[in-house]
Amino acid sequence: MLLLWAGSCLPVHAQSYKDPSLPVGQRVKDLLSRMTVEEKVAQLRSTWSAHPRINEALLNNPRVMDSLFGQGIGMINPDFDNTPEQTVRFRNAINTYLRTKTRLGIPAIFLDEAHHGLLALRTDVFPTSIGLGCSWDTLLVQRVYDYVGRQVAGRGANMVLAPVVDVTRDPRWGRVGETFGEDPYLCGLMGSAVVRGFQGSSDGSIAPGHVATTLKHFTGHGQPEGGVNQGPADYPVRVLRTFHMEPFRLAIGRAHPAGIMAAYVEVDGVPCHANSWLLKDVLRKEWGFGGVVVSDWWGIDQLYQKHLVAPDRPEAARMAFEGGVTVDLPMGTNYARLAGVAPQDLDEAVGYVLALKFKLGLFDHSITLSMDDVNAAIGRPEGSALALKAAEESMVLLKNDNGLLPLASGRYKKIAVIGPCAATNYTGDYSGAPAHNVSLLDGIRHRYGQVSYAKGVDLSLNGDTLSLNNFQYIDTLVLPSHEHNYAMIDSAVAVAREADLVICAVGENEQFTREAEEPHHYGDASTLGLPSDQDSLVRALEATGKPVVLYLAHGRPRSIGAIAAGAGAVLDGWFTGEEAGDAAAAILFGDVNPSGKLTISIPRSVGQLPVYYNHKPSAQFMPYVTESNKPLYPFGYGLSYTTFRYSAPRLSSAAMSRNGSVQVSVDVTNAGAVPGDEVVQLYIHQKVSSVTRPVRELKDFSRIHLEPGQTQTVTFTVDATKLAYWNKDMHYAVDAGAFQIMVGASSVDWKEVDLRVD
Amino acid sequence: MLLLWAGSCLPVHAQSYKDPSLPVGQRVKDLLSRMTVEEKVAQLRSTWSAHPRINEALLNNPRVMDSLFGQGIGMINPDFDNTPEQTVRFRNAINTYLRTKTRLGIPAIFLDEAHHGLLALRTDVFPTSIGLGCSWDTLLVQRVYDYVGRQVAGRGANMVLAPVVDVTRDPRWGRVGETFGEDPYLCGLMGSAVVRGFQGSSDGSIAPGHVATTLKHFTGHGQPEGGVNQGPADYPVRVLRTFHMEPFRLAIGRAHPAGIMAAYVEVDGVPCHANSWLLKDVLRKEWGFGGVVVSDWWGIDQLYQKHLVAPDRPEAARMAFEGGVTVDLPMGTNYARLAGVAPQDLDEAVGYVLALKFKLGLFDHSITLSMDDVNAAIGRPEGSALALKAAEESMVLLKNDNGLLPLASGRYKKIAVIGPCAATNYTGDYSGAPAHNVSLLDGIRHRYGQVSYAKGVDLSLNGDTLSLNNFQYIDTLVLPSHEHNYAMIDSAVAVAREADLVICAVGENEQFTREAEEPHHYGDASTLGLPSDQDSLVRALEATGKPVVLYLAHGRPRSIGAIAAGAGAVLDGWFTGEEAGDAAAAILFGDVNPSGKLTISIPRSVGQLPVYYNHKPSAQFMPYVTESNKPLYPFGYGLSYTTFRYSAPRLSSAAMSRNGSVQVSVDVTNAGAVPGDEVVQLYIHQKVSSVTRPVRELKDFSRIHLEPGQTQTVTFTVDATKLAYWNKDMHYAVDAGAFQIMVGASSVDWKEVDLRVD
Repeated sequence: MLLLWAGSCLPVHAQSYKDPSLPVGQRVKDLLSRMTVEEKVAQLRSTWSAHPRINEALLNNPRVMDSLFGQGIGMINPDFDNTPEQTVRFRNAINTYLRTKTRLGIPAIFLDEAHHGLLALRTDVFPTSIGLGCSWDTLLVQRVYDYVGRQVAGRGANMVLAPVVDVTRDPRWGRVGETFGEDPYLCGLMGSAVVRGFQGSSDGSIAPGHVATTLKHFTGHGQPEGGVNQGPADYPVRVLRTFHMEPFRLAIGRAHPAGIMAAYVEVDGVPCHANSWLLKDVLRKEWGFGGVVVSDWWGIDQLYQKHLVAPDRPEAARMAFEGGVTVDLPMGTNYARLAGVAPQDLDEAVGYVLALKFKLGLFDHSITLSMDDVNAAIGRPEGSALALKAAEESMVLLKNDNGLLPLASGRYKKIAVIGPCAATNYTGDYSGAPAHNVSLLDGIRHRYGQVSYAKGVDLSLNGDTLSLNNFQYIDTLVLPSHEHNYAMIDSAVAVAREADLVICAVGENEQFTREAEEPHHYGDASTLGLPSDQDSLVRALEATGKPVVLYLAHGRPRSIGAIAAGAGAVLDGWFTGEEAGDAAAAILFGDVNPSGKLTISIPRSVGQLPVYYNHKPSAQFMPYVTESNKPLYPFGYGLSYTTFRYSAPRLSSAAMSRNGSVQVSVDVTNAGAVPGDEVVQLYIHQKVSSVTRPVRELKDFSRIHLEPGQTQTVTFTVDATKLAYWNKDMHYAVDAGAFQIMVGASSVDWKEVDLRVD
Repeated sequence: MLLLWAGSCLPVHAQSYKDPSLPVGQRVKDLLSRMTVEEKVAQLRSTWSAHPRINEALLNNPRVMDSLFGQGIGMINPDFDNTPEQTVRFRNAINTYLRTKTRLGIPAIFLDEAHHGLLALRTDVFPTSIGLGCSWDTLLVQRVYDYVGRQVAGRGANMVLAPVVDVTRDPRWGRVGETFGEDPYLCGLMGSAVVRGFQGSSDGSIAPGHVATTLKHFTGHGQPEGGVNQGPADYPVRVLRTFHMEPFRLAIGRAHPAGIMAAYVEVDGVPCHANSWLLKDVLRKEWGFGGVVVSDWWGIDQLYQKHLVAPDRPEAARMAFEGGVTVDLPMGTNYARLAGVAPQDLDEAVGYVLALKFKLGLFDHSITLSMDDVNAAIGRPEGSALALKAAEESMVLLKNDNGLLPLASGRYKKIAVIGPCAATNYTGDYSGAPAHNVSLLDGIRHRYGQVSYAKGVDLSLNGDTLSLNNFQYIDTLVLPSHEHNYAMIDSAVAVAREADLVICAVGENEQFTREAEEPHHYGDASTLGLPSDQDSLVRALEATGKPVVLYLAHGRPRSIGAIAAGAGAVLDGWFTGEEAGDAAAAILFGDVNPSGKLTISIPRSVGQLPVYYNHKPSAQFMPYVTESNKPLYPFGYGLSYTTFRYSAPRLSSAAMSRNGSVQVSVDVTNAGAVPGDEVVQLYIHQKVSSVTRPVRELKDFSRIHLEPGQTQTVTFTVDATKLAYWNKDMHYAVDAGAFQIMVGASSVDWKEVDLRVD
């Protein structure tokens, strides 16, 4: 009986898709039954809203509005080039148009970028993920993204293209800073925390005032060939499942993100945008993912323009659609003519989009924005406080000889702050423009008063003022000449000679580490040394004999072995957001005890790549002829101003069944004189397995606070989810056998106990 | 009826396995029927014969002989530490024992290493494969290995553990010099030529005076993770089949080698020594390989000692046996207790070994060696002449500004020869000790007379006299101090200032590039710069203003961009064997026109890896922030003293059917003033394919000789074997569609024509 109604126009009173009391599935079904093929295809498309000039043209031209939105639209792209006022006007206009001028009044999903804060003007900027991950503080991360989500929602967007949960193993890649590092478990848990923060839930619902999320980039994007963005991810299935796909599996299971983005990269010759094994067999069937799969920007176009697996746009569209991509970003031009696809497949795809729109409440709530709402979400003190806390927890103390840090009050009469990252607080790729932004120099002056300053070198001659959406506009890097920099170094040395202590802030700006997009817009590095003569600067400062504290501001690991050797202390600040300067000063002067630990190995040199802690037994087995095979600083490593003493770990039982569990406990004592936070880490290793397994794998962690002399017992549960692996038959299962259970302060500093699994 | 006899002792007249007139299969069957399980297992084992002290102990202790050889033995390991006299004595003793003291008198296969000449004392040393490959001269390569095979056979060995046909893509790897470079087709054809030379046939028979061969290392060994020897080869199936497995497939199909060696490495968690997909499903069933699969040395031990996929030795042995490894090298200790394997599987494995022994004629010919035979195979003029020819064709002229080379007679009155590779001719990993060895300094003096000389720097303080089997004995590299080298550089500069021209020979010795075996015996590089202050040496020489000719002696690509920029000419000599010096001098002074072309890309820096010509469209797509994405010198590149002009390529037909063929022809003209050899190269590219394909793939080549003004038409056949690929369904097939057919002088210098396949 129902089938007879399909596609015909029901009387208004029977439009059950508009009834919020009905289950989403029923509303989707009803709405689908009313839609033409053109209206359905429109839901799989998107369009642009990123430039004020385009926006104005659209809004003032009804014919263009009709052609773009007449059949409805699935998604509207991020808004990062608009002022808040423009955003409000633009989004209201589109909403109004869709509600009043289209046949079925289906609202759009407005997208935004929000990697470490909303990518927009006048916003809060938090540490990039590579820093935030170093906090190992999932609750803090959730709080940060709850805040960011409200800021995003306040400007009228419904969904963010975040988080990046890619495991990265190549610091040459310009997007390393967007990741949580090299461990799949940590990336999965951090990604889950981000999703929970944004969505305000962990069950897949989107809480009021929150936004939907998009895991990206599925899969292998974090270790592209040669470290070049979008390069092939030619890894075999077990490597993909164990490492690159694992954070996605974890985050989907734990936090139910609304969306996922296909990666640009190819896997064994098959681009992810046309990879039905990945996007259908695994994602839909095996993992039961019911959300939306979006393309990466122009990812479908690349099928015929770059990967050369399709002859033209229509065929690329067909391949992507059949491969499992739901929505074509950013222009929807490929899906414009989605001819010849099976009606039931089209309905399934459109159903994912409509279901999300119902879950977001877009049909049910007023969606008229006001500047009051927007202003309420801009630059609140809560945001700065959260950014400060996040920055404090993100920084990693890499070296501290003879207790140089914290700087004893009154010990150093004259402090020189030097370096190209001292007076400018670079915020990293995919940054919004912060309402306020505290540089290291600002932070030290806030806390210490007057210091002398010299820039030391210029990183680039055209990048110093980059901030908003800095990956986009400056293509060409203009490097200073050595002569230019050497003259600046001379001046800096003169300043240093007058001081008792030098704090030197080196690193990179966003021109050196960003998303490479095309041959004229690069961002990947073939060297991990500090760029633009900064090594010379630091060596010259160290040669003065003054104590030198290095502060690092950067997006990717840098091989700083040579300059760190001559420094008394090294504090790694990554790109730590709008409060970086105050956070660093708080640590340098001892008001905050550093607690961050590395989530990515710092290589000795680029020639050592890939160097990561959870390698196979046969990897990194022999040193190089003139260099160690070990990283400069290992995964999980970070110093504190106090000392933590670990007991041997204890098991609640020496054996467990394959579907049972045991508790492993360790006593951690603050053996020093100041309070501090410690990140206690659990690693496992299976002694004999049907296929090779990593030498150790992170399986749990706990961040604890200890007063001096205090001891806390930390207990982890070890069960099948911690011990399972993709075995020889490519099943995810636990073997009976012997396991090492390791608990400690880093991937190279632990005590172990044996566990038998029967 | 026959079954009743199985295992019982037949009367002598019925021992049909001893009848040379019967087919090998029948002889194998008969012999198997007489063998006990212990005798069968012994055929899958090997033992050691590499050290004089051990040998003497064996020969003088009948009990040890009984325990080692009482049940027979499959193979006896290489003999590289023995003098020829010891070899003769030792091999005769074992032969005699097996013939007279064992029940069935089954002879042993004596193995030798012969990567670029027999690895022994008093032998001929040819260029390493990476150089020999640059000749692109398969007939020459076949002649070289025909000669080497006779030299090997002359000392009583029956089989060599060569050639290496691994495709390499990581110049950090210490064994790059053992490969023919980065192209699977070229590696396959060169490997086939080696097999034909050694075996004296291409049908799998072993011609009299020749020896059996072993392709190695199957598979993925040439691109180990991090460039560290034996590191994981985690590539997906299509990458493995298209690149790493392809040379093996080609060589097996074209030349029928008697053996193949499993690689140490793991592929997606499965070590090759326990990989039945690789060694059985593909090698035996798909490719029909009927030869012997040997383990790499201690490769089976690594299953429980390093890869940790087996708990102990017996289980490792079982896994390797069931995985498809026929013979356990080098000690046979794993297969000593090959308990519980199925009798028919044991017979199959033993059958492969016995079949090879029959094919080698070991049962049928006298195998008593005499020193006369051995001496007849040592250091013949034929060997030196061949080594000279091979060296001349192997060298690659990388740069030649303003016709600096060839050195005009009489133009330079005083020539200074400088550099650590000038007076010592390093011969590379897996070298025998040559009966004579011509250094560059020798060669120049032979041809030019008196020159001045300075060493410039020491490469290492403990490696200068390495030659025989140099990978084995010196573990620790002792690097000179900078002060040590800088003093030598000062002396060298003084010598240079007195000259009109400097020939500077830089590179590495075998301590920098060799097979890394364990943490204290390394050979992989984390930097591709020249080691031990050689860059400083060259820069100092260039700063004198004298014209500088660089000569490179090395095992792996070195990133010489900075020093090459200041040199007038660069001649790449690799490790070019015993006649390197005479060959280089012949080229420098114009008696020989250089003709070698690179078979591996020379990177600009280690940060660019992997950089190879046949990459996917999405690889190497964007440059690095401060460096190009292109190699310093590309695959197929090499200069000549003349100029070759190419016509556009012509097709015999613009279209072909999928199982048809077309001819592509090009006219090549020697447009210069001197005769020369040119390597004409054919590349293909499919414009749209079901999975991504490389931007170009070498599919044929032809080395031609042209007198000045002469034109030759070179014609290649393009057919299914040139166009097929592992498609989306993982079938090796040809698609209908459009192809680019490119013919030219290198991978970056070609003209194209379109081919349509219907």
